[in-house]
Amino acid sequence: MPVTTRTVEYPADGLTMVGHLALPAGADRRPAVLIGPEGPGLNDFQRRRADALAELGYVALAFDINGGRWFSDPEEMLAYVMPLLADPDRMREIGHAALDVLRAEPRTDQDRIAAIGYGTGGAIALELGRDGVDLRAIGTINAVTTGRPGEAAHIRCPVWAAVGSEDPIMPPAQREAFTAEMQEAGVDWRLVVYGGAQHAFHHPTVDHTVLPGVAYHARHAERAWHDVVGLLDECLPVVSPA
Amino acid sequence: MPVTTRTVEYPADGLTMVGHLALPAGADRRPAVLIGPEGPGLNDFQRRRADALAELGYVALAFDINGGRWFSDPEEMLAYVMPLLADPDRMREIGHAALDVLRAEPRTDQDRIAAIGYGTGGAIALELGRDGVDLRAIGTINAVTTGRPGEAAHIRCPVWAAVGSEDPIMPPAQREAFTAEMQEAGVDWRLVVYGGAQHAFHHPTVDHTVLPGVAYHARHAERAWHDVVGLLDECLPVVSPA
Repeated sequence: MPVTTRTVEYPADGLTMVGHLALPAGADRRPAVLIGPEGPGLNDFQRRRADALAELGYVALAFDINGGRWFSDPEEMLAYVMPLLADPDRMREIGHAALDVLRAEPRTDQDRIAAIGYGTGGAIALELGRDGVDLRAIGTINAVTTGRPGEAAHIRCPVWAAVGSEDPIMPPAQREAFTAEMQEAGVDWRLVVYGGAQHAFHHPTVDHTVLPGVAYHARHAERAWHDVVGLLDECLPVVSPA
Repeated sequence: MPVTTRTVEYPADGLTMVGHLALPAGADRRPAVLIGPEGPGLNDFQRRRADALAELGYVALAFDINGGRWFSDPEEMLAYVMPLLADPDRMREIGHAALDVLRAEPRTDQDRIAAIGYGTGGAIALELGRDGVDLRAIGTINAVTTGRPGEAAHIRCPVWAAVGSEDPIMPPAQREAFTAEMQEAGVDWRLVVYGGAQHAFHHPTVDHTVLPGVAYHARHAERAWHDVVGLLDECLPVVSPA
């Protein structure tokens, strides 16, 4: 199924964000998905995820977290990302700005929106939920980040979280803190632990020499994508046009 | 797709076991699946799982662990099951006897067999793997049981394990011991934790008044079945006959 894509620029966090919007063929309204990128920024890999979801029938926006940059230097990346991850309000501003773009698209079914994210993008997806945004699903890969006390109770949709067992950035204590937060808040949650996978395991272009504990894992990467598609199919299935 | 079923009797563990074999339509060879029941024994619920897998194109055997009984009294059940769970050799005998029945079926593709199990049946599926049986996949629900030291290295197929976060019989320490065993052995493993689910969460007829910590969870039950079917589709897909 052919898809249409376009670059969208929008303001957030004092920057001009550069997102990638992908639309399925047709003119009808469709369920819509935000896709949040990992710490280094939005690259073609996540843009192609948006395209893949559009091929499955979703309106999909791969959003930007840093004004169109790609931090190839890990120190530069961490200097940008760590303060962002420590500031739920900034994460929410970035997430809401992307959500506004998605909602402004006429093809978007306003009642059926999900937020998926990887690393930093996953943390942003969770913050949208904690902010009470009416999402149909939240998927977070490599980001089992906790929020401000009590705010997880605002999450009203299923949360699917995934993490590599050998991810040093998301160790067992972090997983437990996250699942305890979800459980105490009464969230409908699931956690998948992919055995042997490290941080950013889903990303074929990560350079495992750049940072220790970061490596691609082909089998689990495929499984995680399959699981994400399954989450969307469960929570906001595409109904084919008549 | 119509399926054919038959009751199969076979000896194991000093008993006459009474299994339920389900065959897909047609006469060709198909990938095959063992389905192990929970501690009380084999009932119609697990027999229908075999039928459901046959409808998807698999040869499926819901096997027996106690000579055709169903322990409705929890004390009687535990008195039978606890010594069995403590004896890998008995579990393997029960598993091998079922495997022999499945392998004797002419429709079974001898090179594509998986073992799925729930509770005690899951522990038996894992023991077949630790015994070096050439399986294509192992799925264990509510049984993240550890084995004898070193034997997990004999597992050569993907292991998919699932457990409820609130399962008092499989608490976090048990999950960690299991995943550590899998990881140290180099197994290709995954663990799904279903948030809020208790023991036997997959089973609509469990009486949660019988034992504390046991309760049906409809959403996660459906997800776990979807995940099991996905595991089979990943590791031993049904190839439709020409």
